[in-house]
Amino acid sequence: MSTAKSYAAQNVTTPLAPWSFERREPGPHDVEFDILYCGVCHSDLHQIRNEWGNSIFPMVPGHEIVGRVTKVGAHVTKFKEGDLVGVGCLVDSCRECDECKKGLEQFCSNGSVGTYNSLERDGKTPTYGGYSNHIVTNEDFVLRVSEKLPLEGVAPLLCAGITTYSPLRHWKVGKGHKVAVLGLGGLGHMAVKFAASFGAEVTMLSTSPSKEADAKRLGAHKFVLTSDPEQVKAVKGYFDFIIDTVSAPHDYNMYLQLLAVDGVQICVGVPPTPTEILGFNLIGGRRSIAGSLIGGLPETQEMLDYCAEHNIVSDVEVIDMKYINEAYDRMLKGDVRYRFVIDMATL
Amino acid sequence: MSTAKSYAAQNVTTPLAPWSFERREPGPHDVEFDILYCGVCHSDLHQIRNEWGNSIFPMVPGHEIVGRVTKVGAHVTKFKEGDLVGVGCLVDSCRECDECKKGLEQFCSNGSVGTYNSLERDGKTPTYGGYSNHIVTNEDFVLRVSEKLPLEGVAPLLCAGITTYSPLRHWKVGKGHKVAVLGLGGLGHMAVKFAASFGAEVTMLSTSPSKEADAKRLGAHKFVLTSDPEQVKAVKGYFDFIIDTVSAPHDYNMYLQLLAVDGVQICVGVPPTPTEILGFNLIGGRRSIAGSLIGGLPETQEMLDYCAEHNIVSDVEVIDMKYINEAYDRMLKGDVRYRFVIDMATL
Repeated sequence: MSTAKSYAAQNVTTPLAPWSFERREPGPHDVEFDILYCGVCHSDLHQIRNEWGNSIFPMVPGHEIVGRVTKVGAHVTKFKEGDLVGVGCLVDSCRECDECKKGLEQFCSNGSVGTYNSLERDGKTPTYGGYSNHIVTNEDFVLRVSEKLPLEGVAPLLCAGITTYSPLRHWKVGKGHKVAVLGLGGLGHMAVKFAASFGAEVTMLSTSPSKEADAKRLGAHKFVLTSDPEQVKAVKGYFDFIIDTVSAPHDYNMYLQLLAVDGVQICVGVPPTPTEILGFNLIGGRRSIAGSLIGGLPETQEMLDYCAEHNIVSDVEVIDMKYINEAYDRMLKGDVRYRFVIDMATL
Repeated sequence: MSTAKSYAAQNVTTPLAPWSFERREPGPHDVEFDILYCGVCHSDLHQIRNEWGNSIFPMVPGHEIVGRVTKVGAHVTKFKEGDLVGVGCLVDSCRECDECKKGLEQFCSNGSVGTYNSLERDGKTPTYGGYSNHIVTNEDFVLRVSEKLPLEGVAPLLCAGITTYSPLRHWKVGKGHKVAVLGLGGLGHMAVKFAASFGAEVTMLSTSPSKEADAKRLGAHKFVLTSDPEQVKAVKGYFDFIIDTVSAPHDYNMYLQLLAVDGVQICVGVPPTPTEILGFNLIGGRRSIAGSLIGGLPETQEMLDYCAEHNIVSDVEVIDMKYINEAYDRMLKGDVRYRFVIDMATL
């Protein structure tokens, strides 16, 4: 066992504070690495506040983790000491079900193991995430990270990146498609970058005129102010895809009407309350509304490689570990462009 | 002009009763035919009751029409006197927009023209449907009907048939797929027949144990009683597709959970009120909920040809024209197996 330093939530009411716990010694198939940066995801906030009703305390959040390998188990073949690596939202799965065999570990029939706020496959050992100085992970759930990119901008790719890359690839979005991105936050800014990089015409949909310049800087070709009925009317039936990154309740029916025939609204944000859908908005245009959840391990590696090749990273604000509670307060107000990333050297 | 005999609703409160009106003389591209049978669709009932808020009176319902050609215009090339033909839900569209060019006339950007309760493209001439003794329709919206099938069983193919055939083809349903059909009525019984004919494993989902024998006779391989929580639990994550034919409000979230990863719930029934969807039910399995609306003209012809080749017709109860109001009362109670069809010789 090795002692890990971390920031943890002890329960749903206290702020995050320093905490130490034990990590396992690397087994024959494990990789141990020092964490250099860890992104701050909205789901960290949801879970320390127990908004999904499944929180396990103490909780060490963080599933956008990059670092450098310090030790590998005897049978590890994919990594060696000194390699740059990453861990995303998953650290294990059954590897035997149809989904695991297809590389869709996020949908493991037997339940995948989350990087934090989850139990290992033994059903009792809690997992602790990336707001810590090191981590020990089975090599099959460790990803190769390029030396070419600024590492702090790579960290959010492990969740915000794959969450938007995966549906764009699954639905084969590219040249000739008109794609709208709803919400310009951690997920939305990556959706704009990827959709533009894949050759689609990208439109940012936002209620805030102040987002226009930034959206265009990130790669959006058009901007529609959704608080202006005339601008909305002008894009009725226009989009092949809407990437909906908003996790607050919102009016899906308005957006469904912006889809062309066979258009798909792909939800990667999850509102906590049910959403009302009018059947005519689906039937009148053979439209779909779909969900997508992060991505499997092979596709996450593909995404990281794509980003290295095309020089794509997340736009981040690097923070000290002790700033985390203020960072959460700012996230609640949407005051971050577009991801906080913790410099773990500050722990 | 020629006088047509019909049954019409004069307003939202009176029962259907005999009415005469004028049909146009066939123009150069028109086909005139004597109507032999007309199916009775649930949407006839919705519209005479103005449940969709867009009713035009007097209304002659009926869009599942088959008959024999009596006259063709000078430039008609596709049909000749004596041919068996059909007309479905559409009698015109702009023919110039992207959707029309793709043969998706039901989604015409400029508004397709319904067979009844609609206005011709002149914006003022009402259309009157198949509860009448003859009809005059542009040849591009007339379909060839085989002499091989019982004609009364063909009539419902023009709406109930294509409405279920089209999504099964669009989503490429076939061998190796597990398909659930929700609702065993006019649409549901055709969905069972087509899905089984395409090679899928078909399961009927129903709250009524009395439907099991009939569902299996129609081609279903399995039956799940959805009022039994144990039976529902046993098929969680099981289906690749659910063909949802129910137009009464129902719990979509229960059914979404029965879908496998990448599963699609395809709605062909439209509840009048919004439906609540929980985002997690889409995201946790990359599931979709989609809508589909009848089918375009080329696909409707393909469907009729497929049915002739594979000996598929609707299960019908043939009625006299004067029985129509009692038939509506029985439809409201679900007391029809599975489509009323009017023998127009009784008009």
